[in-house]
Amino acid sequence: MTTSSLDDFFLQCRTRCESQLNQILPAHTSDPLQQAMRYATLNGGKRMRPILGYATAELLGYDFDHVDYIGIAIELVHAYSLVHDDLPAMDDDSLRRGKPTCHIQYGEAQAILAGDALQALAFELTVTPNTHTDATKQLKIAQELCRASGLAGMVAGQSQDLLSENKAISLKELENIHRKKTGALLEASVRLPAIACDADQKTLQQLTDFASNLGLCFQVRDDILDIVGETSVLGKTQGADISAKKATYPSLLGLQAAQEFADELHQKAIKALDGLDHKTCRLREIADFIILRQH
Amino acid sequence: MTTSSLDDFFLQCRTRCESQLNQILPAHTSDPLQQAMRYATLNGGKRMRPILGYATAELLGYDFDHVDYIGIAIELVHAYSLVHDDLPAMDDDSLRRGKPTCHIQYGEAQAILAGDALQALAFELTVTPNTHTDATKQLKIAQELCRASGLAGMVAGQSQDLLSENKAISLKELENIHRKKTGALLEASVRLPAIACDADQKTLQQLTDFASNLGLCFQVRDDILDIVGETSVLGKTQGADISAKKATYPSLLGLQAAQEFADELHQKAIKALDGLDHKTCRLREIADFIILRQH
Repeated sequence: MTTSSLDDFFLQCRTRCESQLNQILPAHTSDPLQQAMRYATLNGGKRMRPILGYATAELLGYDFDHVDYIGIAIELVHAYSLVHDDLPAMDDDSLRRGKPTCHIQYGEAQAILAGDALQALAFELTVTPNTHTDATKQLKIAQELCRASGLAGMVAGQSQDLLSENKAISLKELENIHRKKTGALLEASVRLPAIACDADQKTLQQLTDFASNLGLCFQVRDDILDIVGETSVLGKTQGADISAKKATYPSLLGLQAAQEFADELHQKAIKALDGLDHKTCRLREIADFIILRQH
Repeated sequence: MTTSSLDDFFLQCRTRCESQLNQILPAHTSDPLQQAMRYATLNGGKRMRPILGYATAELLGYDFDHVDYIGIAIELVHAYSLVHDDLPAMDDDSLRRGKPTCHIQYGEAQAILAGDALQALAFELTVTPNTHTDATKQLKIAQELCRASGLAGMVAGQSQDLLSENKAISLKELENIHRKKTGALLEASVRLPAIACDADQKTLQQLTDFASNLGLCFQVRDDILDIVGETSVLGKTQGADISAKKATYPSLLGLQAAQEFADELHQKAIKALDGLDHKTCRLREIADFIILRQH
């Protein structure tokens, strides 16, 4: 049973997250590298990954401070990936959340380095005593973050995504790309907090299935919004995928079937929570929010 | 007392290091990202960082397998930093160790991502059971690698180095840049193995002082070689620092005084080992090797 509305919960989580990011990357710095890191991180992000962590902690009956640093670490990995993805050699985007991208603001070199330093900072947070008092569990959390971020996850997905440009790829290949590119980190956003909150194996698996379907759902919705959304609402250049000639769910399935696929993934995500001996409303609410989001 | 010549020791360390890198980044892969990661790592590097780790283990009476993965992790951080440093937006180098740089060979996007994945892989190695059986010590090792790599070390140094181009900077500022840019990781190359090999606080401090002076000495020598070396011997474009209008030790001090400064740092490094109740010959030999190196 949830004790506050989803809007209140989001506000509470975001306030908490922003406050910690403000401490870690303070405003008053004359160092361009730190300014670029802050610019890339404190930029009005939705903080969905930390929010999923807080919802997981709530579900498992743990205080938010058990998952604060895990959420922040994942958010820093997410932030660094956006900085590098936006670079001219990659997606070449000049606008992110309605503002100039990091390399437009600070130059390419500092943007590349800001991304590099954000990744190191993310991993550093997972191996400081903040994430867990049990060293073995802390190592497990750090390991999973590395795997979700690197060659087995996010970076591999981004690489394959770029390599698939102007190529005909199958639905299975597209799914594989997105399960790595965005799915791995979203899964980690639920798994790592669940590990920190001592979830048993069965619960961990159910939460993983939830996050896995949610992650793909999130991506299919993103592909759909890239077509039906407007630049002013999205805060990024609309139609960017089409101009890059990337395969998307709508391009492979058509808009209607892509929407149906998103609905199906949504239902699978919710179903994964069935039978959990916990209050799961918040995660259901978040899944609903994501499937209905306009930006 | 050392039991083999320095050449034999280097060969033994390099063979060990290459063999493990070959396992971690195997040759037979059709994935361009993994190919780029391998290309950037198995490229004839001198492996000075792992070698310093093996020498530290030898000094403290530990088997090499206690420090294998620490050396590899540091080498992967070093490799990723070279890939990103060589990018057009940074040092814009097309030649590295006599071969096309990673972005020339695989394109900028895959090179940026290969660097990102190498960093994640490096951190992953430090949090797997390979580095130490004691979880607390493992966390300490991982923490120090993160700090040496990121905002408190290597990346900050590279950022400040780029920002100092075409500017008049003081000797103190130049030293600060290099202590971060190359010094932090060289220090880690000795400190992390020392921690893994249970060095006491006094020994750890002496080894840190050794590595700190050696690191700066290494950089001053690099600046000198950039002027007096030849491209064919260096394996990189000679005079790159001058053409980028970067302050260097020779440019601030003159060639002769820069050489004297390198000699002074060399002596300081050796002196830091004084009174160590261990066989320190190998570290002295390595310091001698670095000060006399031609490439």
